Amino acid sequence: MPNVTFQPSGKTIYVPTGTELLDTARKARIEIESPCGGKGRCGKCIVRITSGNVDSDSLGLLSTSAVEQGFVLACKTKILDVPVTVEIPEQIGKDGGQFIDETDDTCLVREDILPETWQPDPLTNKYVLEVPKPQLEDGLSDLDRLTRTIQQHQGKKDVIYPLPIIRQAAEALRKENGKVTVSLVETPTYFHVFAIEPGDRSARHFGIAVDVGTTTVAVQLVFLPTAKVVATRTAYNDQIDCGLDIISRINYARKPERLEELRTRILNTINNLVEQVCSGHDVEPKEIGSAVIGGNTTMIHLLLGLPPEYIRLEPYTPTILEAPYLTAEDVGIAIHPQSWIYISPAVGSYVGGDITSGLLCTDIAKGSEDVNLFIDIGTNGELVIGNRDFLMTCACSAGPAFEGGGIENGMRAAVGAIEKVGVDPVTGVASYQTIGNVKPRGICGSGMILLLADLFLTGWIDPAGKLNRTKKSPAIQVNGRQARYIIAPAEESATGKPITISEIDIENIIRAKAAIYSACALMLEQVGLGFDDIANIYIAGGFGRFLDIEKAIMIGLIPDLPREKYHYIGNSSLMGAYLVLVSREFKQRQLELAQRMTYIELNTAPAYMDQYTGALFLPHTDISRFPSVNALGIESEVKC
Amino acid sequence: MPNVTFQPSGKTIYVPTGTELLDTARKARIEIESPCGGKGRCGKCIVRITSGNVDSDSLGLLSTSAVEQGFVLACKTKILDVPVTVEIPEQIGKDGGQFIDETDDTCLVREDILPETWQPDPLTNKYVLEVPKPQLEDGLSDLDRLTRTIQQHQGKKDVIYPLPIIRQAAEALRKENGKVTVSLVETPTYFHVFAIEPGDRSARHFGIAVDVGTTTVAVQLVFLPTAKVVATRTAYNDQIDCGLDIISRINYARKPERLEELRTRILNTINNLVEQVCSGHDVEPKEIGSAVIGGNTTMIHLLLGLPPEYIRLEPYTPTILEAPYLTAEDVGIAIHPQSWIYISPAVGSYVGGDITSGLLCTDIAKGSEDVNLFIDIGTNGELVIGNRDFLMTCACSAGPAFEGGGIENGMRAAVGAIEKVGVDPVTGVASYQTIGNVKPRGICGSGMILLLADLFLTGWIDPAGKLNRTKKSPAIQVNGRQARYIIAPAEESATGKPITISEIDIENIIRAKAAIYSACALMLEQVGLGFDDIANIYIAGGFGRFLDIEKAIMIGLIPDLPREKYHYIGNSSLMGAYLVLVSREFKQRQLELAQRMTYIELNTAPAYMDQYTGALFLPHTDISRFPSVNALGIESEVKC
Repeated sequence: MPNVTFQPSGKTIYVPTGTELLDTARKARIEIESPCGGKGRCGKCIVRITSGNVDSDSLGLLSTSAVEQGFVLACKTKILDVPVTVEIPEQIGKDGGQFIDETDDTCLVREDILPETWQPDPLTNKYVLEVPKPQLEDGLSDLDRLTRTIQQHQGKKDVIYPLPIIRQAAEALRKENGKVTVSLVETPTYFHVFAIEPGDRSARHFGIAVDVGTTTVAVQLVFLPTAKVVATRTAYNDQIDCGLDIISRINYARKPERLEELRTRILNTINNLVEQVCSGHDVEPKEIGSAVIGGNTTMIHLLLGLPPEYIRLEPYTPTILEAPYLTAEDVGIAIHPQSWIYISPAVGSYVGGDITSGLLCTDIAKGSEDVNLFIDIGTNGELVIGNRDFLMTCACSAGPAFEGGGIENGMRAAVGAIEKVGVDPVTGVASYQTIGNVKPRGICGSGMILLLADLFLTGWIDPAGKLNRTKKSPAIQVNGRQARYIIAPAEESATGKPITISEIDIENIIRAKAAIYSACALMLEQVGLGFDDIANIYIAGGFGRFLDIEKAIMIGLIPDLPREKYHYIGNSSLMGAYLVLVSREFKQRQLELAQRMTYIELNTAPAYMDQYTGALFLPHTDISRFPSVNALGIESEVKC
Repeated sequence: MPNVTFQPSGKTIYVPTGTELLDTARKARIEIESPCGGKGRCGKCIVRITSGNVDSDSLGLLSTSAVEQGFVLACKTKILDVPVTVEIPEQIGKDGGQFIDETDDTCLVREDILPETWQPDPLTNKYVLEVPKPQLEDGLSDLDRLTRTIQQHQGKKDVIYPLPIIRQAAEALRKENGKVTVSLVETPTYFHVFAIEPGDRSARHFGIAVDVGTTTVAVQLVFLPTAKVVATRTAYNDQIDCGLDIISRINYARKPERLEELRTRILNTINNLVEQVCSGHDVEPKEIGSAVIGGNTTMIHLLLGLPPEYIRLEPYTPTILEAPYLTAEDVGIAIHPQSWIYISPAVGSYVGGDITSGLLCTDIAKGSEDVNLFIDIGTNGELVIGNRDFLMTCACSAGPAFEGGGIENGMRAAVGAIEKVGVDPVTGVASYQTIGNVKPRGICGSGMILLLADLFLTGWIDPAGKLNRTKKSPAIQVNGRQARYIIAPAEESATGKPITISEIDIENIIRAKAAIYSACALMLEQVGLGFDDIANIYIAGGFGRFLDIEKAIMIGLIPDLPREKYHYIGNSSLMGAYLVLVSREFKQRQLELAQRMTYIELNTAPAYMDQYTGALFLPHTDISRFPSVNALGIESEVKC
């Protein structure tokens, strides 16, 4: 009789071969939701088989890549004859839970961020109402009766309706004898009704959280009544063809038709992701009634078709920091046309809604007395320092290297990305691990940091990032003045070509880490604090599923501080957007944070260039700043 | 030396042949505006030559038909050698004035309706603002600076902007050093900015008043700073092909694609009229920033694409009575896409915004103590009775006869319409007069009433509307059982065919007048009042430029009451829309009127059919109701 072990609880149970996994879990008193009654329709009983043999028929509702990663529906899976380990998705609060779709657990919802007693309080609500029948005597129109019913139910505010919704009212009010489900946004002064559906449709209440990054874009589908994440998908921003960083995009957008092209490209990216999160989960894009979008100020300008030119030119003035009430139709997002698109508020041209979103995932949002530091490492690097009394922020241009951009074999943290890598000190040959344990297709940010740190610590690159040409290694290929390091040879690779990193790539990574570190050092200098004053450092970014803090310090990406102060919070822009989507309290916190922050312009700080130049070495020209590296006795002279 | 007389003042002056008319007027101390300095560009010095000979070059700025009617630009016109009479357009208030475009003086703005001390206070405002330049230090976006400037200028309300306007903000704020003109709607809680233009554009501030009738549609272009009417145009509702009356339109609209067809047809009609009122007046449709639309409930439903089916079915419930805030883009009207489309509020399915508009042109809107009666005779007939203490209303189906619909040679009151007609008692031959004094093309409502009354009073038709076949007249053509009356023979007609009225046409007219009279009688009965209790009777409708009350009584269209109690107010729906467009006080009055009115359903009143049947004669089966006719000793027996 095979034994089945459930993680993270570690409970083990013995069942006969052929037992259904859902039944097995019940016997082990492991709670797995199955509202469809085990018919393979709702997708809520999803679990992951991490070892052992099962017979599963989960394709159709789950994507191929999810199945490839071991995800199955417990109700469609039978235990075969070897020991099986089953991973149960994490739970949010008491009635929530979420699972990792694709490989994007960079957007895990962390329980410790949510308030202790927490109930979903989403941006939009759905109410089932019984609207009285029309009467000859009362002189009321259809909308008058609906308005009165809403006011009796929700309070005496004005009720407003967009025209396309009014067009559906007469039929909706008559189809099921006056029973309708209204979707509405509640503001301090009025209710904005954006959908009227006949009958009880309260169980079809979805929203999306969207992170629009310069390099990558993520969309998360959320079931709003329980705040459960249904699916998350990430893709490259389709604007990449028009420039890798913000400044190139702004330059590209100078002609109106190119601004329109950029707008269309980002909409395509988002809309494709929306289709992906919906497909296989029995959700129609038109059932999504709200979206919260976090993104840097330039991305938001491009998404809304606002000319970004004056973000680039002194005095760096965006058209907007806070967007007005927008609908999906206004913006062009292919969900319910009248749904609300809430754009996270920005602080300045280079500190956008992605940062105010990200802060929601830190103690800064909790109004802590401790001084905390938040570092978001994306194509731009943004920093926030402060506590409940002050909040300062600045931005620097890091480039897209850690997200895989501008690196020949760079890629985002998706299946096939090398996320862990070690270098043999003697042979110089790499051993590596990919996401999904498949053949490698490229290397993601977390892999780059491990690789650079190991190459440096083992002496295969020097502090300037040049590969060692004096020691021979089959992994180092020299071609004239340029050399490259082979992480995986062609025969191991999924592309048929070797996965390599060139000296130009290494230079890009060093420039990126230098921009971050120097901004960090200058920021502290500007607010008159030392590194020791910081209680916690939150690091956000799209490196991958984890960030090795030790190795990140070794290459000089982040300051050499006690490791326990560091918290890697992954794609905090997406998670912040999720928090705003499911909780009006977080929306309010975010607005207050945005309004409290003071923006420091690094471009006009002369000390910044000196800091940056000093940081263009591994870990830094001033090795005394990195006592941990110094203690290892690494040769810190430039050799090649 | 020719003499020139100015009307309505009657001043006469002698000037040499060849003197410019503008100079002549100045010499006579007659004020004519000419802001463009007499260069023929602004069109404001428009006057009408009613007799005499001038040399004018006004085409291009004025339409061909305006020129045909004698309109000229005073600055482009020289006096020739015969006495000339010049009509100066009427003045509104102290700095307004208006002129009649085409032949539509059914929409004259009547001074006696306006409050004594009156200043235009239009629905939308344009303000010229100086917005400070962007600053590195202040952390404000473009829209933040604009919002602060608006709040400093207009008060501390929230300011909201639609996305298409935000897209223009960055350029608009920089093009003329921060000088911009904003167009906005002020509500009790916020400012809604719907246009931002660089520089001072306050002199380009236009709105339209629109009357959407079942049969005819009128659009009036208004220069809002002075409330001056720039032009008015009327056309048949392009939906006529889909049914002559409301019920046929509702039936036609049952299929969604036909509802969409009706919507497109009315939009085409309105948008063509918008082009017409703009062309020749140096106004672009995109410069029109607001519209007020009066129309019956069904027409408004069709315009907005709302299914009208439940207006027809008991309990006669429309989707809406009051429309929400709508933009031209929402509705599909080809003016500034973000401009406000204000729909006059309705009272019920058969008493619409055309009636609440029309009431604004009566003492009922002034809160008079006297009981007044308002009768709007269109395709539907609507009545309102009341004073400051009560207001009752009802509707009846009259059909489109008086607007020219369903009558073989019927037409609206446009150039070529027979508007006055008399019948020779001996020969039975008609003498007539057309609008524009051109060859006749048809007969309008006012002509029909005169014709019917004269045919009846001279014995050429009997009380049932049958033509007299016993007396011989070249004007009466008998063809089998049907006869027709020739108003104008083929050789006099513009169409090459005789202008006639058949017995079927007469039957239609009698049915229309019977519907009105019987509703009137029943309404009074229902509110427990007699005819003597009425202080004033206001008659609105699209008959033509005048309505002969005497003759209207003779055919039994309206009750036989002292003539001085009657006031013909023409297209009061259009004029009411104009009043709301230029005055927020009238908008408020209209809302209050709509909310105060009680609707009486005639369809469920059994006495109505009796009243109607009794009224299907000239003037009525019960001749004692019409003492004036009775006194003439007309034979009241049906003969044929």
